[in-house]
Amino acid sequence: MTRQERWQNFADWPLFIASLLFLAAYAWDVLDQPSGAAESLADIVLWATWGLFVIDYVANLVLVESDKRWRWFYTHLIDLAVVALPMLRALRLLRLLTLLRVLDRVAGRAVRGSLAIYMGGASVLLIVVGALAVLDAERTDPAASIRTFGEALWWAFVTMTTVGYGDYSPVTATGQIIAVVLMLGGIALLGVVTGSIASWIVEKVSDADAEQAAATAGHIHQLEDKVDQLQAMLREVLERDAEQVRAAR
Amino acid sequence: MTRQERWQNFADWPLFIASLLFLAAYAWDVLDQPSGAAESLADIVLWATWGLFVIDYVANLVLVESDKRWRWFYTHLIDLAVVALPMLRALRLLRLLTLLRVLDRVAGRAVRGSLAIYMGGASVLLIVVGALAVLDAERTDPAASIRTFGEALWWAFVTMTTVGYGDYSPVTATGQIIAVVLMLGGIALLGVVTGSIASWIVEKVSDADAEQAAATAGHIHQLEDKVDQLQAMLREVLERDAEQVRAAR
Amino acid sequence: MTRQERWQNFADWPLFIASLLFLAAYAWDVLDQPSGAAESLADIVLWATWGLFVIDYVANLVLVESDKRWRWFYTHLIDLAVVALPMLRALRLLRLLTLLRVLDRVAGRAVRGSLAIYMGGASVLLIVVGALAVLDAERTDPAASIRTFGEALWWAFVTMTTVGYGDYSPVTATGQIIAVVLMLGGIALLGVVTGSIASWIVEKVSDADAEQAAATAGHIHQLEDKVDQLQAMLREVLERDAEQVRAAR
Amino acid sequence: MTRQERWQNFADWPLFIASLLFLAAYAWDVLDQPSGAAESLADIVLWATWGLFVIDYVANLVLVESDKRWRWFYTHLIDLAVVALPMLRALRLLRLLTLLRVLDRVAGRAVRGSLAIYMGGASVLLIVVGALAVLDAERTDPAASIRTFGEALWWAFVTMTTVGYGDYSPVTATGQIIAVVLMLGGIALLGVVTGSIASWIVEKVSDADAEQAAATAGHIHQLEDKVDQLQAMLREVLERDAEQVRAAR
Repeated sequence: MTRQERWQNFADWPLFIASLLFLAAYAWDVLDQPSGAAESLADIVLWATWGLFVIDYVANLVLVESDKRWRWFYTHLIDLAVVALPMLRALRLLRLLTLLRVLDRVAGRAVRGSLAIYMGGASVLLIVVGALAVLDAERTDPAASIRTFGEALWWAFVTMTTVGYGDYSPVTATGQIIAVVLMLGGIALLGVVTGSIASWIVEKVSDADAEQAAATAGHIHQLEDKVDQLQAMLREVLERDAEQVRAAR
Repeated sequence: MTRQERWQNFADWPLFIASLLFLAAYAWDVLDQPSGAAESLADIVLWATWGLFVIDYVANLVLVESDKRWRWFYTHLIDLAVVALPMLRALRLLRLLTLLRVLDRVAGRAVRGSLAIYMGGASVLLIVVGALAVLDAERTDPAASIRTFGEALWWAFVTMTTVGYGDYSPVTATGQIIAVVLMLGGIALLGVVTGSIASWIVEKVSDADAEQAAATAGHIHQLEDKVDQLQAMLREVLERDAEQVRAAR
Repeated sequence: MTRQERWQNFADWPLFIASLLFLAAYAWDVLDQPSGAAESLADIVLWATWGLFVIDYVANLVLVESDKRWRWFYTHLIDLAVVALPMLRALRLLRLLTLLRVLDRVAGRAVRGSLAIYMGGASVLLIVVGALAVLDAERTDPAASIRTFGEALWWAFVTMTTVGYGDYSPVTATGQIIAVVLMLGGIALLGVVTGSIASWIVEKVSDADAEQAAATAGHIHQLEDKVDQLQAMLREVLERDAEQVRAAR
Repeated sequence: MTRQERWQNFADWPLFIASLLFLAAYAWDVLDQPSGAAESLADIVLWATWGLFVIDYVANLVLVESDKRWRWFYTHLIDLAVVALPMLRALRLLRLLTLLRVLDRVAGRAVRGSLAIYMGGASVLLIVVGALAVLDAERTDPAASIRTFGEALWWAFVTMTTVGYGDYSPVTATGQIIAVVLMLGGIALLGVVTGSIASWIVEKVSDADAEQAAATAGHIHQLEDKVDQLQAMLREVLERDAEQVRAAR
């Protein structure tokens, strides 16, 4: 285990908890719109959790073997962007990506075995985070139709399932970018649901094939046994011949 | 067969008929909005059928082997919720879930072999029940657009196929929750249709593979026969050798 | 070839041409709304082609072997409905189903090998027929938004791809039933497109498996050759033993 | 390599660069709506790049072997249409098809191996080109809702993911034809996403089958070795027998 891997093993759970804190603070910030000391507190949590991700990025960059550092840097430019860009207030939404990546890394490890649970969890997370983010982006626009969290949640469901009634739709550029992310998530969700069902049906069909393959394998085993017996019998023949030769001499 | 299994075998058909009665009474209650004695009758049927499900739950809990009782209780918390929550008037819609579960248990056993019939039946049931439920939820809201059963049925189709024109869309929280269930049903429907077609096409391709596997299996059988003949021939050699040895003595 | 099969071979092409005539007359009736002599002509074509389908149904019923007649009748109740119901003016739309069935029977035989061409043709036909039918149904309703064939065609595309903007949507019961048929057609189209791509990808993967299976089959053939050689050698051993025995006597 | 193949190898990159120039000039023409000298410049680029495609078509027709010329002409009628029709101002949009075809030919060769990258690139290109084209078509219509590039881009995403809110939808015939192309692209995208996921899941399942097939192949190899040993042993028997016979003489 390299120093970097040891760091990642150590950092995963703190980052996961930081992500949940970030999510809670973000939800509180959007839903309650706290002011004064409360706003400061929410802001501190948001920035502190973001700080942890900066530390994780720097630690990874420092701890990677020095001959692979440039390669790691080049192959993790997205990580750099996700960590560096939210310093601009306008791009603070990108911190949500950090959140999604960490949840994917930690929670994914636990449930990826069960694709259904993983996909269900990711969908719910995407809908909740998308609803929070779109509410935050739209609420202040005078032309917006999405003005409460209930409406945002309903809109997120309607979007992610690609139903798209159009009773609510984002009007700000930020809201529309969030909508595109949700739509792509919806297409992925559809793909996983469909793919799982298709593979389940295909599997049932190929079970018959697998049974035949197993039967064939069984016949080959019997064949091996018979050939082994043949060898034993031939060895006996050879020994008797040898005996005969000895006896004949 | 345990006492619990005997109970389930006995209870399935009565519960199935109770579900149909429940569905009929619910449809009557929603579509006709009976008053006076008629309303009482509908209510009695709704509560009586619900009572049967309570009896079924209690019977299962009592009849399960005593050492497995706690395990059964923990693994059937959803059943408890579905049975207990509709006692609150606001959650009486949840009784529809009971209905869907029983229909799944009884009708599913009959047609699950044919995925297409099962999925078609489930879709029709979901659309009809969803239309009834959304009509019940929306009708009393002054801002609602869904006001007749025809509109509700049309809306349910538009939602479940993920078309979503937006000419009708639910405005109450209850109606929106029902809409989400229909959307998820629509995604599952799409998945099954797509998956079935994909597996049908894949199957046609893998038929060729299966033929080759069958041919290979045939060759292996011939091989076994030949090896058996070899053994017989070698046995003859050994016997003649033994004869020779005897003759030589 | 039974008498019934000979009839079907004879009737397929006339029915196909009658279907095209029916489609042309229906389109003319809907798009041009002819009056006077022209209307009578269109009506005559529509009724005459329908008459051909009645003749086909009766001929099938008469020409089927007498001991299978009841079975044919019971298993073709849908054909009876499709032929008999359009006698009512309100259900004349059902004659379109006759059209779709004949096109499927004749054209399907030609192109079914190529699923993509078949599905593409069926989709175009469904969109054109659906647009004609919905225009016919909606045009006279004061609340309708679909009033020209262009709008009907645009609406049919928007519906069948499950996009569903909602800029046009049917308001009559007939129009909504046509919409449901188009939506189901859209789901089937999606299923075929997705399923074809999935099976194409799966096929590429299973090619590698098939190659291994072929290699295995090759090894088994070599094995058979070697065992044949073994048998030949053993036969030689047995013959020499026999010679020795003869020589020893 | 025929003269035609040498031409294609030579022409691909210039045509690719011409396509990018065409795309840039088209985007400039639509977004900036240049007038005077600038408009002339954009027009010159648009016509010059189109001229290159005419040259490519003629060169292919001239350089193909003379005995295959008619066959090439008949099998490339679509190329002729794509090259000849945009001479009419009203059909200049068709030049976008030329663009898509060349990008497919050149860029496709590079990334087709990775279906995901290819499909992602094609989707982005389709959305950008579709947004430009719909903006060009709709902007001048008084009833149009799509009036800025931002709205056109948002509309293209909403259409291609089949969400279809209906907040923006094309009202001109040209715009609606572009919309249909985007919808079909969306269905293809859904198909590729779903198909890839399905095949990925199926692959994981069939890995187990492949392992068993590999194990079976391994057993067959062992079997061959054993039969080889048998042959060697039998050969020994035969030689000893021959020795005995020689010794007995």
